[in-house]
Amino acid sequence: MHSEFELITRFFTPDPPGAEAGVTLGVGDDCTLLAPTPGQRLAVSVDTSVAGSHFPADAPAAAVGHRALAVSLSDLAAMGARARWCLMSLTLPAADDDAWLGNFARGFHALCAATGTALVGGDVTRGKLAIGVTVMGEVPDGQALTRRGARPGDLLAVTGALGGGAGGLHAWRRGERDLGHPLLERYLQPQPRLAAGVALRGLASAAIDISDGLLADLGHVLEASSVGAELITDSLPLAEGLVAALGEPGAREAALHGGDDYELLLGLSPDHLETARARLAAQGLALSVIGRVSDEPGVRGVPLEGERGWQHFTRGAAP
Amino acid sequence: MHSEFELITRFFTPDPPGAEAGVTLGVGDDCTLLAPTPGQRLAVSVDTSVAGSHFPADAPAAAVGHRALAVSLSDLAAMGARARWCLMSLTLPAADDDAWLGNFARGFHALCAATGTALVGGDVTRGKLAIGVTVMGEVPDGQALTRRGARPGDLLAVTGALGGGAGGLHAWRRGERDLGHPLLERYLQPQPRLAAGVALRGLASAAIDISDGLLADLGHVLEASSVGAELITDSLPLAEGLVAALGEPGAREAALHGGDDYELLLGLSPDHLETARARLAAQGLALSVIGRVSDEPGVRGVPLEGERGWQHFTRGAAP
Repeated sequence: MHSEFELITRFFTPDPPGAEAGVTLGVGDDCTLLAPTPGQRLAVSVDTSVAGSHFPADAPAAAVGHRALAVSLSDLAAMGARARWCLMSLTLPAADDDAWLGNFARGFHALCAATGTALVGGDVTRGKLAIGVTVMGEVPDGQALTRRGARPGDLLAVTGALGGGAGGLHAWRRGERDLGHPLLERYLQPQPRLAAGVALRGLASAAIDISDGLLADLGHVLEASSVGAELITDSLPLAEGLVAALGEPGAREAALHGGDDYELLLGLSPDHLETARARLAAQGLALSVIGRVSDEPGVRGVPLEGERGWQHFTRGAAP
Repeated sequence: MHSEFELITRFFTPDPPGAEAGVTLGVGDDCTLLAPTPGQRLAVSVDTSVAGSHFPADAPAAAVGHRALAVSLSDLAAMGARARWCLMSLTLPAADDDAWLGNFARGFHALCAATGTALVGGDVTRGKLAIGVTVMGEVPDGQALTRRGARPGDLLAVTGALGGGAGGLHAWRRGERDLGHPLLERYLQPQPRLAAGVALRGLASAAIDISDGLLADLGHVLEASSVGAELITDSLPLAEGLVAALGEPGAREAALHGGDDYELLLGLSPDHLETARARLAAQGLALSVIGRVSDEPGVRGVPLEGERGWQHFTRGAAP
């Protein structure tokens, strides 16, 4: 069994982040010292991913590392924040597995590098595998996207495609292990829409990331904004391979209720639609209109059982 | 079983912190938005406390809440940082216990209030009881206390008294349940030395909080500062009731090797001793000289087995 210090040194000490990363005193003291950017708000969030609950216990280690960070970064994306720093609380089973740890760290660090996120702290405890990730990002004062700003007449739009999270979990459970399978990739290696969130500053009236399922997360926006919505369920963008895997009704169900998509759901004035589309197209990301905000409470245009959502006990709002 | 949302709303939504707490968008969105103070460094750290490993599984709920926050705040104290914000990752057994949760939240919030720390985020998962707390504090640029600054000729000094953590654990294991017992209080409700850390800015050449045991944590300072030390083991300030509980040798052993004291260990130029003592005395806190920094590597003046320390697997440096 590694000591905590050995383990941290071997697997989780990346190249020391320097002044360019806003780290003025790095790992190895009681705290890390960071230099927030003047004029920016600090956006913070924490998500814990538990083996067997939030991801399959036998998922590939690199994907587990990627995913644990991705789900937290997705919260920054939904605020229009730029990712800066993260801390990791790692709970590991007693039996160390160097190969597993190495791959886990590789997946985590790769997403750090891809998103400009510096790992600046953490701790390790023993127990059932779980990864808690606190993320910190920055957004200029007054430019954060929130859940509160949706207004009647706004369009509702989503980035990318929906249902891939539920579809990928379904595929994994049926024994699919080709990580290049488009649904598995969507489920195991979701891409936090950080660049999209930044590009939507000043355009989106409201934003949330779709982690609990489209309808459940839409409900959060509607409640926070005190509005209702009409959905055009035929216009939901479905993840590649989803209809083939689940059939047409199953695919629509996955898009409406499935969790773990980590796309952004937006409120958007019709005046801003083309600008938003052009900015996201420059990132290779589609933006689909799926409905409209109304002043009548509730959600119309969906099946009656449409209110169910997918409410994890474990992933949700901050206390 | 509560849903996550119910649970968070019922137990962990304090009075909404406002602009005075530097919270510009509170709980209930994808992230919380904070307003860091211009000219300050952000000090961050995370510690996870696991039932049965870091505290007795049957410890009083209010003490568990207090202690989980205290051990993280202690890292801010050791940097001379002022506490500002925290996030909590709570892992709860499947069976909810409202009385337990209410008391846990009460202990946590009471220490938040006493230290000016705003709870600004968190999440809840199911599993063996564990509490991960990320803390954020602020310290003026260039004034942080670190482990690196101890110089030969500096005095070594500790705040308060030592051995109370190990002594309290010993008492608990022997069945002591009177929470007013001085050793139990030291173990179950440690007081992070935040005000002392702030008062020592500009005076201490180095600082660390004593969580792994005096000798182990001294070792961290010596290594970071590339120096050695001479200890006057007769001068160790022993916690109230420690000799009565453990006898003289056991008390000294607890003070040298016991963990969980959460006092500060300092390097201090002799020129600053009286000023430091006066500032801490104003807080009702003693400062005891326990040795001196030398340029000869290693630690002298302690028993040969003195290098053991108390290295938790689970509490330690950041990755």
